[in-house]
Amino acid sequence: MASQRILVVGGSAAGPKAAARAKRLDQDAHVIMIQKAPELSMASCGYPYYVGGFFDRREELLCTPTGVVRDENFFAGAKGIEARTETEVVAIDREAKQVSCKDLRSGETYALDYDKLILATGATPRMPPIPGTDLDGITTLHAMRDADYLRSLRDEGGVRKAVVIGGGLIGIETCEALQLAGMEVTVVELLPQILMFLDWELAKLLENHVKEKAANVITDNAVSGFLGQNGKLSGIKLQSGTELECELAVVAIGVQPNVQLAREAGLDIGVTGGIAVDEQMRTSDPAIFAAGDCIEVPDRLTGKKTLAPYGDLANLEGRVAGENAVLESGATFPGTQHTGICKVFDYAAGSTGLSERKAREAGFNVLTGVNASLDKPGFMGGKLLVSKMVVDADSQRMLGYQCVGPGDVSRQISEAAMAIAGKQTIPDLVNADLPYAPPFSLAIDHLIAAAHIVENKLKGRMVGIANTEVKAKLDSGEHPFFLDVRGPAEFEAMRLGLGETLIPLGKLRDRLGELPQDKDKEIICYCKISMRGYEAQRILWAHGWTDIKVMEGGIMAWPYGREK
Amino acid sequence: MASQRILVVGGSAAGPKAAARAKRLDQDAHVIMIQKAPELSMASCGYPYYVGGFFDRREELLCTPTGVVRDENFFAGAKGIEARTETEVVAIDREAKQVSCKDLRSGETYALDYDKLILATGATPRMPPIPGTDLDGITTLHAMRDADYLRSLRDEGGVRKAVVIGGGLIGIETCEALQLAGMEVTVVELLPQILMFLDWELAKLLENHVKEKAANVITDNAVSGFLGQNGKLSGIKLQSGTELECELAVVAIGVQPNVQLAREAGLDIGVTGGIAVDEQMRTSDPAIFAAGDCIEVPDRLTGKKTLAPYGDLANLEGRVAGENAVLESGATFPGTQHTGICKVFDYAAGSTGLSERKAREAGFNVLTGVNASLDKPGFMGGKLLVSKMVVDADSQRMLGYQCVGPGDVSRQISEAAMAIAGKQTIPDLVNADLPYAPPFSLAIDHLIAAAHIVENKLKGRMVGIANTEVKAKLDSGEHPFFLDVRGPAEFEAMRLGLGETLIPLGKLRDRLGELPQDKDKEIICYCKISMRGYEAQRILWAHGWTDIKVMEGGIMAWPYGREK
Repeated sequence: MASQRILVVGGSAAGPKAAARAKRLDQDAHVIMIQKAPELSMASCGYPYYVGGFFDRREELLCTPTGVVRDENFFAGAKGIEARTETEVVAIDREAKQVSCKDLRSGETYALDYDKLILATGATPRMPPIPGTDLDGITTLHAMRDADYLRSLRDEGGVRKAVVIGGGLIGIETCEALQLAGMEVTVVELLPQILMFLDWELAKLLENHVKEKAANVITDNAVSGFLGQNGKLSGIKLQSGTELECELAVVAIGVQPNVQLAREAGLDIGVTGGIAVDEQMRTSDPAIFAAGDCIEVPDRLTGKKTLAPYGDLANLEGRVAGENAVLESGATFPGTQHTGICKVFDYAAGSTGLSERKAREAGFNVLTGVNASLDKPGFMGGKLLVSKMVVDADSQRMLGYQCVGPGDVSRQISEAAMAIAGKQTIPDLVNADLPYAPPFSLAIDHLIAAAHIVENKLKGRMVGIANTEVKAKLDSGEHPFFLDVRGPAEFEAMRLGLGETLIPLGKLRDRLGELPQDKDKEIICYCKISMRGYEAQRILWAHGWTDIKVMEGGIMAWPYGREK
Repeated sequence: MASQRILVVGGSAAGPKAAARAKRLDQDAHVIMIQKAPELSMASCGYPYYVGGFFDRREELLCTPTGVVRDENFFAGAKGIEARTETEVVAIDREAKQVSCKDLRSGETYALDYDKLILATGATPRMPPIPGTDLDGITTLHAMRDADYLRSLRDEGGVRKAVVIGGGLIGIETCEALQLAGMEVTVVELLPQILMFLDWELAKLLENHVKEKAANVITDNAVSGFLGQNGKLSGIKLQSGTELECELAVVAIGVQPNVQLAREAGLDIGVTGGIAVDEQMRTSDPAIFAAGDCIEVPDRLTGKKTLAPYGDLANLEGRVAGENAVLESGATFPGTQHTGICKVFDYAAGSTGLSERKAREAGFNVLTGVNASLDKPGFMGGKLLVSKMVVDADSQRMLGYQCVGPGDVSRQISEAAMAIAGKQTIPDLVNADLPYAPPFSLAIDHLIAAAHIVENKLKGRMVGIANTEVKAKLDSGEHPFFLDVRGPAEFEAMRLGLGETLIPLGKLRDRLGELPQDKDKEIICYCKISMRGYEAQRILWAHGWTDIKVMEGGIMAWPYGREK
């Protein structure tokens, strides 16, 4: 039998993975990988850290762990793959099983036959539909050349003010990178919050932290125009009318899948705009597979198709596409939970599954629990975590979990991601057996404690109130009785300033007379993290008060500013 | 209705948790907690870090996160619990529902009635049955007074040489603590390895690290006697005959559950020697519950009863016991996966589920995969992880996972613990959606990569060999052909020295002539971590060699020493 020829379009993440997997599983296959950029297998998620100066050697973005640059020679020798860079596939002739390639250096065009074709064409950054985007000083952080450009600005100095347009994951990573590069940074976000994978109140904690780090954040506003002088960016104009001076603008308002090649070849494009594939990563043409940022995949929680342009999923999808292209073994990729994490200065922010907002949109009977605690004991240098668990109250299944703070967010999101994948419920999670030792966690892991909160709410043993609801009450002129049950020293050091009454938990049973004597008056209790707030609720209920609520997450989760 | 009286015997971990939960859920209950030690709610897992000088304020072991000492006043005020310290419960009269208490300060004895009794009597360190254990300088690290004693030795200096008897989790934590306290430490372990929750070859990597840190480890040997002068310890004698000079010996050979009180009261004691309880933490007497180190619980993997004296489980069990004691709500605790982790100088070691050894003992059709990789990209300061995944080849379910190294072991074990709890299989794990960003992980998380290795083995796409099997072959005089497929610079810097042949992977297809021409000759390939070793296997198979094996984990997982 003649060897089969596998053509892979795209050489960044999904492409190389698919190519390598195909070749490994069929050593007789002739695998050709075609890449538009000059580089191959770039660690593109590392660009912000190169720009921010976490490391200085550009090649580290292009090397194997042992320091070999992944160029054409590497792919030929170590992987048995023919890689062609600076080459674009401009058309697919499905009937002839042939693609047209264009060598971008020579301009020459030629045809290549395939037995199986794998599309890993990636995505392109969106640009705002406003004038001036061709000015010098406007870029994205998507390609290696973008990273090179921004890094050169860092190394040369001279850029004083930069604007990042878009407060998503890439926007916030870029904000940190530019601030560490010595620039004065402003992030402009169209929506009311940064980091849309979080619910508002957790995103606000991140926004507060970004501002503490001397970067500026403007939400609920958009860029209406770029301002220039002599072809160079000099500022941006916001929809609100404000003008911000800047010499650099990095656009990070999301990406759109590159589907033109697929569309022109008549392949099905999905509802989200990504290439439609089945679980085996096969397009509507059985000889063509697709993987990575150009496709749509199922959301494992809602079952709906979604775009999930993440580097880790690109690798997993590429692995499946590569295997099925050579073996037709029926390997599958089941979809995404939208698990993600990002570093934001001294904080991290992560999420897996559905946010409360998305779970409600999807029609679930949502119940949430907010937890704030250290990640490990104070005597081991524990740091704060604030998290929110989103649960389907009917099945008690965890639908989502998000976590922010300076503590070990990575462990939290990792364990939550696995728990969601395993369809675990609150009865499972309250007794999870997680690795405990003081250098790594509290005796009751933060996620387990969150499950305890949710269990108490599900069983009516605790009635919580979100801090956003508390704020809404205040804004609408309501006057609940606020009860802070911390100690006097804690109160002196920092408090919310809502007209609250301080009664330390340990004195509460003796000082019930200081509470409203109308037993139906709404009382909102809290403490630093609302563990003591919960104890207060149990005591007050037992003494006849009927409308007691615990403000979940307490002062540490309060996003609106405090009195010091 | 009169309020019910709940008596809790034990005030360390399970006891306070049970008492607090009971009181929270029934504010009318009269909850009395009786504690033999002078302290309450000690963070006993923190003792080694106090001894080792990670922090200096003793009270931190006894405080709430906001700095309030958890003494009798705290329990009375904040928790509504009557705590009696330095008081021992000496007998239970089940018929009268009454216990006899002895005040250890006054010697006075008195009776207390109960409606429900919760036993959280803990465990006692085992002592070796040899002469001399009463010498000054011999201790355990179990009670607060032990921590105080060892910390005083650190603060006063003067102890030059210490021996830790037992290389389990507590023994190894104590070894680090004493070494950091400035002592010259030797760990003596009866078994062929330290840290029995790991399989031998991973434990050996830890042992090597402990030795690098200038502590000594002696395995396969035991203490046969303590040597003394003037009532003071001067050394130990080993079964091998060797004598080791030392002024301090810390015994850490495990604990046994404290069941005397329960046994004398006629409660059922389980097969393992722990108090028998059902899923609701109820003993054979429906009015008596038990929780913590004194009970036995189901192993969730084997279904068999087991002892699991971990601080985190004590809390979870106590929570269930406390709830059922007041509400009879049917809350359950399902058992343990034996998830554990410990810090060992710059490494961590963790495990969840069954080790290979235990899985084989339990009769599973075991298949394993060993993975070695960085925890995150090199450019972000990635550190090594070596792990072993244990799978039931019939159901493809993950049975266990262990991980060691300087990298982020905590995240690895956390995600694996959740995956095992969710009964996830290899087809699930190969596509896990875990949080990826360069500051936190590789694009393909270390655990997912381990699942890929196992999948390749299950499907016959890779044939692996454990380094222990390789060593056994060498020791029995076999001479397989060893093929190291790294680069020349890597080879020069460090190699195994097994008479191996170096052919870099990128040259392998061109240099097949340098391999044995007998196509049935056993060839063992490897590289730094055996990713390239696996690629080599695929190539050699395609060229007709039949007996190729990949040495799993490569050089980084090799525990027997290397040539430099």
